Amino acid sequence: MKIAIIGLGLIGGSIAIDLRKNGFAGQLSGTDQNPAHIAQALALGLVDGILPMEIAILQSDLIIVATPVNSLAMLIPKILSQIEDNQIVVDVGSTKGPVITAIKNHPKRGRFVATHPMAGTEYSGPEAAVPDLFKNKCCVFCDAEDSDPDAGETAKRLFESLGMRIIHLNAAEHDLHVAYVSHISHIASFALALTVLEKEREENRIFDLASGGFSSTVRLAKSNPDTWIPIFQQNRDHVLDVLDEFINTVSRFRTLLIKRDFDTFDQLIRHANDIRRIID
Amino acid sequence: MKIAIIGLGLIGGSIAIDLRKNGFAGQLSGTDQNPAHIAQALALGLVDGILPMEIAILQSDLIIVATPVNSLAMLIPKILSQIEDNQIVVDVGSTKGPVITAIKNHPKRGRFVATHPMAGTEYSGPEAAVPDLFKNKCCVFCDAEDSDPDAGETAKRLFESLGMRIIHLNAAEHDLHVAYVSHISHIASFALALTVLEKEREENRIFDLASGGFSSTVRLAKSNPDTWIPIFQQNRDHVLDVLDEFINTVSRFRTLLIKRDFDTFDQLIRHANDIRRIID
Repeated sequence: MKIAIIGLGLIGGSIAIDLRKNGFAGQLSGTDQNPAHIAQALALGLVDGILPMEIAILQSDLIIVATPVNSLAMLIPKILSQIEDNQIVVDVGSTKGPVITAIKNHPKRGRFVATHPMAGTEYSGPEAAVPDLFKNKCCVFCDAEDSDPDAGETAKRLFESLGMRIIHLNAAEHDLHVAYVSHISHIASFALALTVLEKEREENRIFDLASGGFSSTVRLAKSNPDTWIPIFQQNRDHVLDVLDEFINTVSRFRTLLIKRDFDTFDQLIRHANDIRRIID
Repeated sequence: MKIAIIGLGLIGGSIAIDLRKNGFAGQLSGTDQNPAHIAQALALGLVDGILPMEIAILQSDLIIVATPVNSLAMLIPKILSQIEDNQIVVDVGSTKGPVITAIKNHPKRGRFVATHPMAGTEYSGPEAAVPDLFKNKCCVFCDAEDSDPDAGETAKRLFESLGMRIIHLNAAEHDLHVAYVSHISHIASFALALTVLEKEREENRIFDLASGGFSSTVRLAKSNPDTWIPIFQQNRDHVLDVLDEFINTVSRFRTLLIKRDFDTFDQLIRHANDIRRIID
């Protein structure tokens, strides 16, 4: 199958590595708005060749769009208007509401499959691309009933070839759930990093002490704002809801410390320990 | 050198593994208040033998106390009163103010070395003990000038044999700094876990989506309350100061979302990215 990847950053680049390796892409072209990314992608051999976007689209059976989410509502309708009835367009953005709304009434709606392969790291750009990023992770298909059966089936085989499990959600459910399991973790990490960096200005020494637990919790604070600002813009309302709950929970710990109510504090920690059920 | 370890959990057990392996302990005895821990430590071969605490102390050149921090203010003076002038007592607790205050005027003060090897995991008990836990990490010596030179020198060699760098702080500095780089990370993780667990009750599905970033941020939420409640009790005032700053910072992100001020949000993320200077 001939595949084009629009956007060769962490996600697009990592998909490229796996699709070439597993043979799903018989021919893989790509492009990126950033000339530095194009040079890196070529140097790393992520794709067979770089083509202008229009040509890449014309020559491909399937087009994967892996650009920042703020570009999707403009880009996906434009691509859909260029393709033939047997081509397929897949986006892999972290928010799904705006893009799905943007193509709702497009005559080629059925050729589009809205997906979110749930994997990533705190790094970005083609040089952050790694093999097997998606292995054993979950890929969400949103509003899949609005895609033509053959388009959905091909997209399913594509993500299964990366080792992913497919689950189905509607766009609204998806956007709320990722606010919980992804977006709020990032804000907590950003805030933790800022709190400690502020202190560091007074006390140079503090980072001699930073140990493994700290590194793990602030890892996401290294994430690229060019990726994340569009996500927070698009998912603002859900993120605000979750952020309010998070602030309330942190404030509850504060109140318990003020009151020295360590019995309730202990109960809360034991409840938080239930997270063991979920993560390894 | 004959060494006794009082408390064979994650920290005491991991020290035991390394001290037997590197030969620093010619003979290593240990004890633990918890009979299950004693059975596990024996099964795992963490120590040469389990002895009643008084006997272990009597037979050792150096005694390492690795019990929860709330026991130290009672236990360390008691042990100091039992030892001869050539024996050494080292504690490895995560808070240093209360224990140092408790032994301030003890006639054997000089035989005590207050340390905090800054390493750990979210697991606890003898079965959580691992080799090389301390390698390339930092060990804080607190108020080291109050220890006899030979006691301090021996403790230094001990932690260096584990691969640690030694730094010196007074107890007040230490307790403030660990509130920043360790204790607040734990509260942020506990709160994040609780926020998401609360949501899960309504929406079973949510955890299908939990990806790597989430796991990393909530890893510390698996931590044992029996270890952490005493730490929060002892370091309450510093933790409250840092918690207030953290809540202010998270609230700042909230305000920016409400006002849709994504330019300032972007600047804050870029500033948070400076954490790259500190962690790998």
